Amino acid sequence: MRIARFSVREGGAAAGSVSFGVVEGDASQPESLVVHAMAGHPFGTPQLTGESYRIDQVRLLTPMLPSKIVAVGRNYAEHAAELGNQVPEVPLTFFKPSTAVIGPTESIAYPPFSSDVQHEAELAVVIGRMCREVPLDRVPEVIFGYTCANDVTARDVQQREGQWARAKGFDTSCPLGPWIETELDPADLAVSCTVNGEVRQSGRTSQMVRGVAELIAHISEAMTLLPGDVILTGTPAGVGPLQVGDEVAVSIEGIGTLANKVISRA
Amino acid sequence: MRIARFSVREGGAAAGSVSFGVVEGDASQPESLVVHAMAGHPFGTPQLTGESYRIDQVRLLTPMLPSKIVAVGRNYAEHAAELGNQVPEVPLTFFKPSTAVIGPTESIAYPPFSSDVQHEAELAVVIGRMCREVPLDRVPEVIFGYTCANDVTARDVQQREGQWARAKGFDTSCPLGPWIETELDPADLAVSCTVNGEVRQSGRTSQMVRGVAELIAHISEAMTLLPGDVILTGTPAGVGPLQVGDEVAVSIEGIGTLANKVISRA
Repeated sequence: MRIARFSVREGGAAAGSVSFGVVEGDASQPESLVVHAMAGHPFGTPQLTGESYRIDQVRLLTPMLPSKIVAVGRNYAEHAAELGNQVPEVPLTFFKPSTAVIGPTESIAYPPFSSDVQHEAELAVVIGRMCREVPLDRVPEVIFGYTCANDVTARDVQQREGQWARAKGFDTSCPLGPWIETELDPADLAVSCTVNGEVRQSGRTSQMVRGVAELIAHISEAMTLLPGDVILTGTPAGVGPLQVGDEVAVSIEGIGTLANKVISRA
Repeated sequence: MRIARFSVREGGAAAGSVSFGVVEGDASQPESLVVHAMAGHPFGTPQLTGESYRIDQVRLLTPMLPSKIVAVGRNYAEHAAELGNQVPEVPLTFFKPSTAVIGPTESIAYPPFSSDVQHEAELAVVIGRMCREVPLDRVPEVIFGYTCANDVTARDVQQREGQWARAKGFDTSCPLGPWIETELDPADLAVSCTVNGEVRQSGRTSQMVRGVAELIAHISEAMTLLPGDVILTGTPAGVGPLQVGDEVAVSIEGIGTLANKVISRA
């Protein structure tokens, strides 16, 4: 099932209202997609309201508003090597804040304090249940689904500052979307990134140094994860610069494509 | 004005309810303190409900539930030196998650994945207004007040892992309280930490490498700060280990004392 969050563009009493919804149709023919609105939140047993919209009648928003995003660095060996780094002995975990999240119809605002903002295509895992100290074999129980993420990074700031709160936490640095796929095996999915239609990153989740279950067990050993929290699982090789005016698109097999324009910060 | 958040211990219809409140009385004589309950949140013009409680009738909770905590490392030269580090050329910023926050009557749960959990007494700044790119001279406008924080750190994990999400983000690693003092000049306050009554850290905020205004300007250059967000301003020299059974207390001149027991994780 594909779970989106959306606002209604126009028409009638529902205009501007924000809901979760179930997306049906063939994602390779976007004009065929229909969104069925849901009452309340999608955890547990979703209740549909009976209202449905064509995809062009709605604006897709970030599919989740996480309380926290926990991300993992250098989790693909080729990517670690391309920046001159070793694969870490222990997973390298950092946070991105809720204020960094944007959806699939919003733009990445190039921050004035960087001159080297880069794309990082990543598989994002959305947590479905409050949990801590999750054993490896029970990780599937706490996963709600998967979406595409771009771990947008101010590379120059990252290299200058020892910890990455500003480099990876600036506003708009965490595009998520277009929706959450709840039925997916994350073991071996194609992950790619294009800039203005040109392929820049192309990998498979099977190349992860540590897989989804191992990462969630490791992170939840330390901290409680809440429903809606997001885990970013690292980026494959091919990261590179974005310029104002670019369109960057992250595609993951079985999920879809998250495309965002790059604009100047207002 | 001192702003607390509390639940009512017992008696009548209000038992268990959670409110913000204004604390009056002499903090050096805790039994004299009275809490006047407030309707809604304390930003803007607080409205008192008319209900008041003696301090022993309430349980003080974390005075704020921040959406994010942005912390600064190595902001006191003597502390940087005691761990063999330089003062960073650019402030070293990292996040602690909302799930790490506890209040003044809760306990620090020693996490099983560390054997060297340490205290770090810090002045915490509570943000009062949504803001970004705050110029130095306008920082006072976005500050709601100040409280005591303990940036509890799994030192062994911090030294093993390149980024500090687990080392400084585990559950209960961010005690805040006992309340927020809204009228305070942060320029030169005594900051101290005791463990079982013995002084371990003793410094003054005037020893910060970068002051409160500079830190908030720097952080908000990258990201939006929301009302209730918390900035931790670094710890003076004297950090050291905590053991299960210890009581650790952070005191800041003009605010009060934040005391927490250390227990085993359940």
